[in-house]
Amino acid sequence: MSTSKHDHDREEGLDFQPKFDASGLVTCVATDAATGDVLMVAHMNEEALRRTIASGDAWYFSRSRNALWRKGESSGQTQRVVEMRMDCDQDAIWIRVEQHGAACHTGRQSCFYRKIENSDGGMQLSFVDADRLFDPNAVYRK
Amino acid sequence: MSTSKHDHDREEGLDFQPKFDASGLVTCVATDAATGDVLMVAHMNEEALRRTIASGDAWYFSRSRNALWRKGESSGQTQRVVEMRMDCDQDAIWIRVEQHGAACHTGRQSCFYRKIENSDGGMQLSFVDADRLFDPNAVYRK
Repeated sequence: MSTSKHDHDREEGLDFQPKFDASGLVTCVATDAATGDVLMVAHMNEEALRRTIASGDAWYFSRSRNALWRKGESSGQTQRVVEMRMDCDQDAIWIRVEQHGAACHTGRQSCFYRKIENSDGGMQLSFVDADRLFDPNAVYRK
Repeated sequence: MSTSKHDHDREEGLDFQPKFDASGLVTCVATDAATGDVLMVAHMNEEALRRTIASGDAWYFSRSRNALWRKGESSGQTQRVVEMRMDCDQDAIWIRVEQHGAACHTGRQSCFYRKIENSDGGMQLSFVDADRLFDPNAVYRK
């Protein structure tokens, strides 16, 4: 495994130089600062990153809605950032957050409310930690 | 926020139907089953997913090397999967793993060995939990 000078600087340096993908995004993992659980995986563009750092609230970029988005702006389920970390090649960010309410748009605490299980050679999901903390039909007022 | 029938099935059903992106990948977050720390963010294609589930060892797909890859096959730093979870829209996977040695190719326990900090209006990184558990030059035998 060879590492170019450029990679070396990005991996071992202290300059903030996020490596955005072709869509201008980095991946962001949000974990619950209290429990350590992974709450969600989402994306940030440069503006979402800037606003998150400046405000201390998590901002994301929605690929499906093609829009900048403050987490909780519709649902009230905001995320207060406790710590932000950058990964080795600077294309992924980990934020530890205080989650107000539930992180998932389905009303669950985490988006990861199903286990993957091996069943008779096939794969199957099963619910775990899948209680809803809010009713999405009420919160998003369809 | 409206949800189509198809989305509803994917979010509320128990069928394993990963939503691969245009490159045939889903995002995978690996956390340390012992500490809860995020170790790395990587990608899996259908084959990596299949092998991970079948073997209980983490397999990924490297975008930079364009190759299927069993974590630790060069470095010996393997990951034993304790639990696998799927997210709401089935485009991200969370695995809790027993990490043998260090997850990061730089020799650190986690790829997230730098904090992002606000300094005088700019952003800066600072090392945290950045001790190396192995020497990458020795392990990868350049």
